Amino acid sequence: MLTKNLIKELTNTLPKQNVLSEIEERYVYSVDASNDPYTKTQLPDAVVFVETIEQVQKVVKIANKHMTPIICRGAGTNTVGACTTPHGGIILNFSKMNKILEINKENMTARVQPGVIVGDLQKAVEDIGLFYPPDPSNLKVSTIGGSIAQNSAGARCFKYGSTKDYIIDMLVVMADGQLIRTGSNTIKNATGYNLGSLFIGSEGTLGIVVEATVKLITKPQATKVIMAYFDTVEDSIIAVNKIIEKQISPTTIDFMDKNAIQTVEKYYPTGLLCDKEAALIIEIDGHNSIIEDMRQTICSTLRDNKASSIQFSTNKQEADHIWSARRSSMAACTKLRPNITTDDVIVPRQNLAKLVKGIQEICSRHNLIVCMVGHVGDGSVHPQIPIDYNDKDEYKRYKIAKSEIYHLTIKLGGIISGEHGIGLEKKAYISKVVDGGALDYMRQIKKIFDPKNILNPYKIF
Amino acid sequence: MLTKNLIKELTNTLPKQNVLSEIEERYVYSVDASNDPYTKTQLPDAVVFVETIEQVQKVVKIANKHMTPIICRGAGTNTVGACTTPHGGIILNFSKMNKILEINKENMTARVQPGVIVGDLQKAVEDIGLFYPPDPSNLKVSTIGGSIAQNSAGARCFKYGSTKDYIIDMLVVMADGQLIRTGSNTIKNATGYNLGSLFIGSEGTLGIVVEATVKLITKPQATKVIMAYFDTVEDSIIAVNKIIEKQISPTTIDFMDKNAIQTVEKYYPTGLLCDKEAALIIEIDGHNSIIEDMRQTICSTLRDNKASSIQFSTNKQEADHIWSARRSSMAACTKLRPNITTDDVIVPRQNLAKLVKGIQEICSRHNLIVCMVGHVGDGSVHPQIPIDYNDKDEYKRYKIAKSEIYHLTIKLGGIISGEHGIGLEKKAYISKVVDGGALDYMRQIKKIFDPKNILNPYKIF
Repeated sequence: MLTKNLIKELTNTLPKQNVLSEIEERYVYSVDASNDPYTKTQLPDAVVFVETIEQVQKVVKIANKHMTPIICRGAGTNTVGACTTPHGGIILNFSKMNKILEINKENMTARVQPGVIVGDLQKAVEDIGLFYPPDPSNLKVSTIGGSIAQNSAGARCFKYGSTKDYIIDMLVVMADGQLIRTGSNTIKNATGYNLGSLFIGSEGTLGIVVEATVKLITKPQATKVIMAYFDTVEDSIIAVNKIIEKQISPTTIDFMDKNAIQTVEKYYPTGLLCDKEAALIIEIDGHNSIIEDMRQTICSTLRDNKASSIQFSTNKQEADHIWSARRSSMAACTKLRPNITTDDVIVPRQNLAKLVKGIQEICSRHNLIVCMVGHVGDGSVHPQIPIDYNDKDEYKRYKIAKSEIYHLTIKLGGIISGEHGIGLEKKAYISKVVDGGALDYMRQIKKIFDPKNILNPYKIF
Repeated sequence: MLTKNLIKELTNTLPKQNVLSEIEERYVYSVDASNDPYTKTQLPDAVVFVETIEQVQKVVKIANKHMTPIICRGAGTNTVGACTTPHGGIILNFSKMNKILEINKENMTARVQPGVIVGDLQKAVEDIGLFYPPDPSNLKVSTIGGSIAQNSAGARCFKYGSTKDYIIDMLVVMADGQLIRTGSNTIKNATGYNLGSLFIGSEGTLGIVVEATVKLITKPQATKVIMAYFDTVEDSIIAVNKIIEKQISPTTIDFMDKNAIQTVEKYYPTGLLCDKEAALIIEIDGHNSIIEDMRQTICSTLRDNKASSIQFSTNKQEADHIWSARRSSMAACTKLRPNITTDDVIVPRQNLAKLVKGIQEICSRHNLIVCMVGHVGDGSVHPQIPIDYNDKDEYKRYKIAKSEIYHLTIKLGGIISGEHGIGLEKKAYISKVVDGGALDYMRQIKKIFDPKNILNPYKIF
């Protein structure tokens, strides 16, 4: 009855076709890319497609009246359950608020709606010689709103930083329906607290971002990609340190372990060397005149540091070919078992080899396959564990292995998420990586911003 | 009597020589570089030099007992009155907590105490091929603690961002004496809210930063500096846009107006062209092989866009020579009148020429000298107005001109501080540049973090 009233109010407020309430429709929006069938969740009460800021405010007011949770959703690519509906509620779908409102070439800024696809923004600004660096690997589908919610990073983070380094201003609808502006249309801002930074990475629990202004940089003139193989994981990381010692800062220093190499080569053959323990994919960018010299320095450094079969791109097609191996890893893993899982752990780089070897050992001991890719420059690893969710014993081993991976990461001075977030899936571990006093202040901030606990409740904490 | 008890407790807690309570000593620490004699301030009740985190916690507990304000102080270079003592209190002096605790080459991080001089940290990391980019112009004396308090930037901000982009972890003593950790020793972090960002730029009003871990990058192999003159301010800004259109991202694009050029040349002659309306100082950095090619592209773009007398450095000595003109501006201005003032306004770059011309017009109308330097890339200007504080009429005109400058900045879509902060001096204007709703949340955050209002009270808001 309550739900019926809620839906009636929503359909009275929004265009009728923008409110979905059939069980099949609600089912589709009850899950995200985390997709663990054993995580308890409910169906959302309704799914609404918003088209204007005013509509968002009206929906928030209805949610307040009914004390119904609001869960914002971009493309639903979240891997930690941040857009699932464990207690029902309204899915606020931003796929119709997907306009690039302005690209200002002189100010080097873009103003966008939250549903804009990251890759679409990148293409639009690159067409006029500008550049939006954050590159989550799902950028062809994931949205700016989602990037803000999770502080998304990506391979280029090593050189360019993450989403938080590029958002200069936001319009945010607060839990009471009030619209606030967090920053200014200037590159620097030293007027009051960094309120905007608080929303970035808050997984939709503090406010609803309805517009963002991003800082752009100049587009690098040229790009090259280098791939090299190693007989041990340790050797690959030593080689990375040697490259950095040459005062070269690659755009990305990505990594694949032996299982990732073999799995990709089996299902998407591109000629990878399957007997090698590790591969590095290094991208460099910059001024035309720099690229070849940098490429030579990196290749000779790799050669001097136990790398074999070094290849490099001479054009965009060859660069895409090299990247396709790294990017196919998750798709290839889906062929191994009916379901695929991914994770996101990060340590200080000096402990990265120990983390990679440790994860291999943990998964081997629990009779699980693990394919590892990661961003070596940042010390970040994504263990991809294909499993069969219907195999209860395997699922049990998987959960134990995950817990052991988190504990190993923490032992090595790391944390349980560098770029995916906490959501529902890692809630149980947050107190192990975030200081207790800091957590307490976070909870108090949540209470100020969302006193009725209606914004994506029961996530993170 | 109260103050006597306070000082007794402080001397019982800290080494006796670390507590200053004589009137002359307290006078010295009642002011900072803002130094406006008409801003009402009291003497601090005591000045204490802390040497350990535990000492900071003990002083905070004493301050709680006496309900006495605590004002943190690094080098006192703040220009907005952020480290003055309008209501007395305890000056917490960090000049003895000035150790670089660790530089980790492999992780590319440094762990520092708040009293470390920014320039000392830069030198230490550059010695091993690493780089800490934020470069406030007073970096030879200003501290990391002060940089965090004000989110300091500097000329290199255009390419490298500001302090907030480099702090990955902090230890903070809260208003109740509790020690919390805000982040982690990893380059990326997606575990909970960005609590650290809230402290950066909060001017010591939310917590006392007692240790920070900074992210480092690789040191650029080479640097070159180019200087060029223009007959109009507009032409200089058009030339900057043309350089950026060539997909070149200089490290710094700094600016001097005619008055700044003439004043520097008069008192520190380096051969500047005094009949020109504007000069640009452009620094580029990067890989050895890139520098000469970039330099040529920039020089030819400048030449094609109405620049004259283009000069460039071929070695470090020549680069320092060019920079010395820009950096002498404030010192030269002190020769014009007994006192010197500086400010910090920022607009979207497309409105920068209008802002510069507008400030010249305002100052001329009020019969004030103004020398302008700034960071064109960011749209940021520092109007330096030399005055005589004893000349009450001039002071009055100065205050009116400042107000007009702020209103013009706001009209041009800008804000009243890009890198100096709000402190005491700009409090009256904050509601004109920060959204009312956002301000309200900032105030609520202040209340949670500092319920007794003892941390640098009555600043910012």
